[in-house]
Amino acid sequence: MGMIGGGKDAFIGAVHRLAANMDGLIELSAGALSVHPEVAKESGKILFLPDERTYTSYEEMLQKESELPADQKIDFVTIVTPNFAHFAPAMMALEKGFNVVVEKPITLSLDEAKQLKAKVEETGLTLCLTHTYSGYPMVKQAKQMVADGELGAIRKIIVEYPQGWLSRLSEREGNAQAAWRTDPSKTGKSGSMGDIGTHAAHLAEYISGLKITKVCADLNIVVPDRAIDDDGNVLLKFDNGSNGVLIASQIAAGEENALKIKVYGEKGGLEWHQMEPNTLIVKWLDEPAQIFRTGSGYLSAIAKHNTRVPGGHPEGYLEAFANIYRNFALTISAKLNGEEPQPETLDFPTVEDGIRGMAFIENVVDSSKSDQKWHDYKI
Amino acid sequence: MGMIGGGKDAFIGAVHRLAANMDGLIELSAGALSVHPEVAKESGKILFLPDERTYTSYEEMLQKESELPADQKIDFVTIVTPNFAHFAPAMMALEKGFNVVVEKPITLSLDEAKQLKAKVEETGLTLCLTHTYSGYPMVKQAKQMVADGELGAIRKIIVEYPQGWLSRLSEREGNAQAAWRTDPSKTGKSGSMGDIGTHAAHLAEYISGLKITKVCADLNIVVPDRAIDDDGNVLLKFDNGSNGVLIASQIAAGEENALKIKVYGEKGGLEWHQMEPNTLIVKWLDEPAQIFRTGSGYLSAIAKHNTRVPGGHPEGYLEAFANIYRNFALTISAKLNGEEPQPETLDFPTVEDGIRGMAFIENVVDSSKSDQKWHDYKI
Amino acid sequence: MGMIGGGKDAFIGAVHRLAANMDGLIELSAGALSVHPEVAKESGKILFLPDERTYTSYEEMLQKESELPADQKIDFVTIVTPNFAHFAPAMMALEKGFNVVVEKPITLSLDEAKQLKAKVEETGLTLCLTHTYSGYPMVKQAKQMVADGELGAIRKIIVEYPQGWLSRLSEREGNAQAAWRTDPSKTGKSGSMGDIGTHAAHLAEYISGLKITKVCADLNIVVPDRAIDDDGNVLLKFDNGSNGVLIASQIAAGEENALKIKVYGEKGGLEWHQMEPNTLIVKWLDEPAQIFRTGSGYLSAIAKHNTRVPGGHPEGYLEAFANIYRNFALTISAKLNGEEPQPETLDFPTVEDGIRGMAFIENVVDSSKSDQKWHDYKI
Amino acid sequence: MGMIGGGKDAFIGAVHRLAANMDGLIELSAGALSVHPEVAKESGKILFLPDERTYTSYEEMLQKESELPADQKIDFVTIVTPNFAHFAPAMMALEKGFNVVVEKPITLSLDEAKQLKAKVEETGLTLCLTHTYSGYPMVKQAKQMVADGELGAIRKIIVEYPQGWLSRLSEREGNAQAAWRTDPSKTGKSGSMGDIGTHAAHLAEYISGLKITKVCADLNIVVPDRAIDDDGNVLLKFDNGSNGVLIASQIAAGEENALKIKVYGEKGGLEWHQMEPNTLIVKWLDEPAQIFRTGSGYLSAIAKHNTRVPGGHPEGYLEAFANIYRNFALTISAKLNGEEPQPETLDFPTVEDGIRGMAFIENVVDSSKSDQKWHDYKI
Repeated sequence: MGMIGGGKDAFIGAVHRLAANMDGLIELSAGALSVHPEVAKESGKILFLPDERTYTSYEEMLQKESELPADQKIDFVTIVTPNFAHFAPAMMALEKGFNVVVEKPITLSLDEAKQLKAKVEETGLTLCLTHTYSGYPMVKQAKQMVADGELGAIRKIIVEYPQGWLSRLSEREGNAQAAWRTDPSKTGKSGSMGDIGTHAAHLAEYISGLKITKVCADLNIVVPDRAIDDDGNVLLKFDNGSNGVLIASQIAAGEENALKIKVYGEKGGLEWHQMEPNTLIVKWLDEPAQIFRTGSGYLSAIAKHNTRVPGGHPEGYLEAFANIYRNFALTISAKLNGEEPQPETLDFPTVEDGIRGMAFIENVVDSSKSDQKWHDYKI
Repeated sequence: MGMIGGGKDAFIGAVHRLAANMDGLIELSAGALSVHPEVAKESGKILFLPDERTYTSYEEMLQKESELPADQKIDFVTIVTPNFAHFAPAMMALEKGFNVVVEKPITLSLDEAKQLKAKVEETGLTLCLTHTYSGYPMVKQAKQMVADGELGAIRKIIVEYPQGWLSRLSEREGNAQAAWRTDPSKTGKSGSMGDIGTHAAHLAEYISGLKITKVCADLNIVVPDRAIDDDGNVLLKFDNGSNGVLIASQIAAGEENALKIKVYGEKGGLEWHQMEPNTLIVKWLDEPAQIFRTGSGYLSAIAKHNTRVPGGHPEGYLEAFANIYRNFALTISAKLNGEEPQPETLDFPTVEDGIRGMAFIENVVDSSKSDQKWHDYKI
Repeated sequence: MGMIGGGKDAFIGAVHRLAANMDGLIELSAGALSVHPEVAKESGKILFLPDERTYTSYEEMLQKESELPADQKIDFVTIVTPNFAHFAPAMMALEKGFNVVVEKPITLSLDEAKQLKAKVEETGLTLCLTHTYSGYPMVKQAKQMVADGELGAIRKIIVEYPQGWLSRLSEREGNAQAAWRTDPSKTGKSGSMGDIGTHAAHLAEYISGLKITKVCADLNIVVPDRAIDDDGNVLLKFDNGSNGVLIASQIAAGEENALKIKVYGEKGGLEWHQMEPNTLIVKWLDEPAQIFRTGSGYLSAIAKHNTRVPGGHPEGYLEAFANIYRNFALTISAKLNGEEPQPETLDFPTVEDGIRGMAFIENVVDSSKSDQKWHDYKI
Repeated sequence: MGMIGGGKDAFIGAVHRLAANMDGLIELSAGALSVHPEVAKESGKILFLPDERTYTSYEEMLQKESELPADQKIDFVTIVTPNFAHFAPAMMALEKGFNVVVEKPITLSLDEAKQLKAKVEETGLTLCLTHTYSGYPMVKQAKQMVADGELGAIRKIIVEYPQGWLSRLSEREGNAQAAWRTDPSKTGKSGSMGDIGTHAAHLAEYISGLKITKVCADLNIVVPDRAIDDDGNVLLKFDNGSNGVLIASQIAAGEENALKIKVYGEKGGLEWHQMEPNTLIVKWLDEPAQIFRTGSGYLSAIAKHNTRVPGGHPEGYLEAFANIYRNFALTISAKLNGEEPQPETLDFPTVEDGIRGMAFIENVVDSSKSDQKWHDYKI
């Protein structure tokens, strides 16, 4: 693995490394960890990278690594830069023959995402998008139960993602995370919807197997003087005619990272909270609700495949993240060995999910500007 | 107390009696318990009513009771009939000089509600609307904390009210409750929004002290062949510029009566769940969240006034209901004695809340029919 | 109903009145509300008692009421005095032909309890002991499920009852409740075990249908200068050979009234928390745990009989208390009418439970003083 | 790192590898993964170990590795065999100059543990015992708050550890885990207390800073035909005079791994559940309880040191485990570099904790056999 971005003090780069390390399948071998050469070098040292593979630009890394013998060069790159710096290195990596892991949202625009998709198809390489929350075992279980028809046809989805960390104008108080995430030139067309709304939308579509077809959005700049939306509410219509609500807010004071989803079908409903991720509540019309728990013997095969420890030993965010890395790594390993990847290892977000994420952002932003109630999803 | 409606097998009439009984302040003395004379008579016997005060129509009851000496006649009537049968008896009761308790929604139309308001003002009598959920001690506490500015200016409100009991077409399966509540001629212009959306809207306005000024509504008939909406989502704007979301659904399979509200301000947020009503979670930007509990010494005076037992002894729905009756009873008792009611006893929903409830229904229905996103609240 | 004790400012007397009022079956008609005549009189006025039935001693009340015609006199007395003042009025009431409701613990000693039992048997009257927690619908459900063998043979019971209200030496700070409850001459041989341990023991035996046969107790005076135990832990053996633990503490700082029970059988376990009383968690060996909820259609008949409102409308402590009063009232009403009480109405604690409660106290106190590990239960 | 035990299909060995991998500080370089040579070899291949460092006995590994140059040989061994096979390899490893990580309980007997302690002191090497639960950030927070006196003097500790996985006689049904854990020759003198009771005892002492001085134990064989206790209850006395209860059961049907602890002091109490490990409830006498959450800014330095991701991103069992490995690795790394380890890295269980764990087992077993109530702790 070669990492682009994620130098010392970066948040998400460290998370990627922890997740990639976990299963002993992936080794950090190269890095272009910062646009500042001295930070790049220092970060490489901290991470025990050999000096000759501690690059000072992604272009250098991709070029030099591509020239190494096949058994020495990296198998894939991981791009953990701010949003505006996803597209160029991803495109170059694909062109140089590297598989790619990239943080969401995949690019700054839907158009860029489409270009990446074309390149993925052209090259036959694999691109993985880290919609982490779909990596949790109980999310897998939820998806499987819906797919198996246990809830009947889906009728309604409520997904909310409240955070409180932008309740103040932190971007003016030296918070680097806040600074780029509220700067439209770096984060893209939407703040709250790009950063967390895309996760919520992905989760709703992932679990339900449905696709959003219409939105009615209300994006807000709640904290005065902020440059981009920090809050938004979206009414949804799905392709089977069902309805939904998506709420994403970064000014929900006192909330940590409280992603929750409720899915209702004809026969029952299910509820999952990211902050207590090992519990899935399944509710029935005429019987007691059930508490499904990670690591239990009664779970579906796909949930078990994404679980590492026995029931009652909580799996967390890093394990969900590691599930995405593991499935990706097993997939590219199979392809490198000329084998067909196992179906369960193909269960990670791809460039298609990237396109849907960018479409979500653009459609929601367009809808929010419009006086018309319903906005047809354009992709 | 004289009861109109609420004969044997009725649901809400029994609830009213339990709540009214609780504090020993109110006695059921007369009833026009059913439009079917034999049911009315039988119900009266079951409830130990004297035969001569077991009436077979509300007109008869109001007429006969109004002719009794002041120290013998009922002080107020309670109207627990289906929605379409609220207005006429309420109006007649006021005209005959009786105070009134009436179930929500107050009438079938906003116009009727306005007529009742005019009559209340003309007569100087008291009308109480049983928005039960505002009777819980921790809802009082929440309202007080917002009023005291503890959360700072309010920025966002999310209120959801999912039920699952109309997930099937129960109105065709002999469920009498379902039958009238899904019949527009009996329930009014909206099903889900009239029945439970009004509770959610009242709760949001009650706790926050804000008023809804705009709505963007999506009402749905989810169960095929139903005659009225059984589900709806509404985006909200409040009079201080803040935003919100209101969800009311009766097809949320497996949900009981899961009213929940989250209110976020500049400095903190609060969360309350009706099904665990004695807990109020208050979240802060930089400090641990706090768990406020009914019956605790640190609560506000208004919360304590509405509490009967010590901390850790759960108060339930009937106690919340009884709080509304008790406050109403103490208020009319003071007025009967020529005294000024204590401020804390005036804390019950009135005809003004009835008007706001009807306005909510009508505005939401109008918005739902419109292609325009935002609908200005008309009252 | 005639009340003994429970004058203004008393806690448990008010609770009894609220519970007795609720169903409209019971009316407070007479009272000997305080040993202080002026308090007795003033309390009577507040409660709208006629002056001639506001007595200044229980002897007077029992004598005078016994002389009234059958259709005018009270049907039963409720004794809500401190523990030391239960026995004499209960005995006199039975002798005068009145049924009795009495707070727990039933008397100051096991011997007194046995005398009451003999008198109950002699007179054929009914004595009801208010072990309130057995009145909750989900406790009924738990008992039924165990009785039906759904958990298999019971293997282990853990019941804990932590409170924090005696964490300070409140009896020296003007707290009247604390004063008598920590005074051995008024409360009996044990503080924590008499006051709340008896509830925990009753709940364990009630749900499981088992009887405690051995105890190993460790009672403690944790707050210096207190006159009686305020904390205790007890190892248990039941009559089917299973084991258990009972913890009762009034110095568990920050706890309200956190009675919890877990019962484990061969096939599954169940868990109930008094502070969230409408939920019963049932856990299975190889299937998801289930959440049983008050008011649901799938519950047992006995749970439904003890429920007043539909699912999702929380029932609280007062409703549990009212269940005991209602069952008692229906039982004595049937007996007064010469009918056989319905089996479900006979489900309230009686003098037998009083004897087991006193035995619990005495055996635990004896065990605590002993160096021997296991103490055989003596009754 | 060289691993002893933990071949394919072993449970805890895999957990150790996941935890050791996480931070990129530790690499699996050698292994004696099974006593079956073919399993050892096959397991080494699966784990990408070089063939020449895939040993077929621990003796071989320790001998060969000790002969490698300092910059090539392993820095420490990890012993993840069943209990009976801890002592010999640990002793040999120390003698050969390797630091040691060992699963709990440290040995089969207290005497062996004392021999290991003497060897650790003699060699100056470091031994780490994986009492994982003390690695959770909120356990660190709890310990710090007690140490800072925030709860006042500790008065009572309740720790319970119910599991249900031995509810059947699984050791006769081909469950290898169950087989050795219920075989006294492999697991030691106690089943439930050795396997999970030691965790509970360690947690109680770790958080409170107190030491158990007396026990009164009731160990049970609940499932017929089992060879060792599968359940037990223990009354405790601590060295400051406070009391406690410890419950460990493996026949608590339907429980996963439900370790919970409550600690009460003069001023407040705290409660932590292993299955929701990122929440610490702190209860106060006269103020609302507080919810402390992993990753929050208001936490103590030691909690933050043991946290990897921001608030709201749940940390799980593997992260707690990794905290122990990381602290151990940083400590031995400092010592290898001739530096003083940072105080916060020294926060992992050592041979001293191993001795206390073995003492717990032996004292509890002795107490359980005795008719005397209190048994003085012997070490």
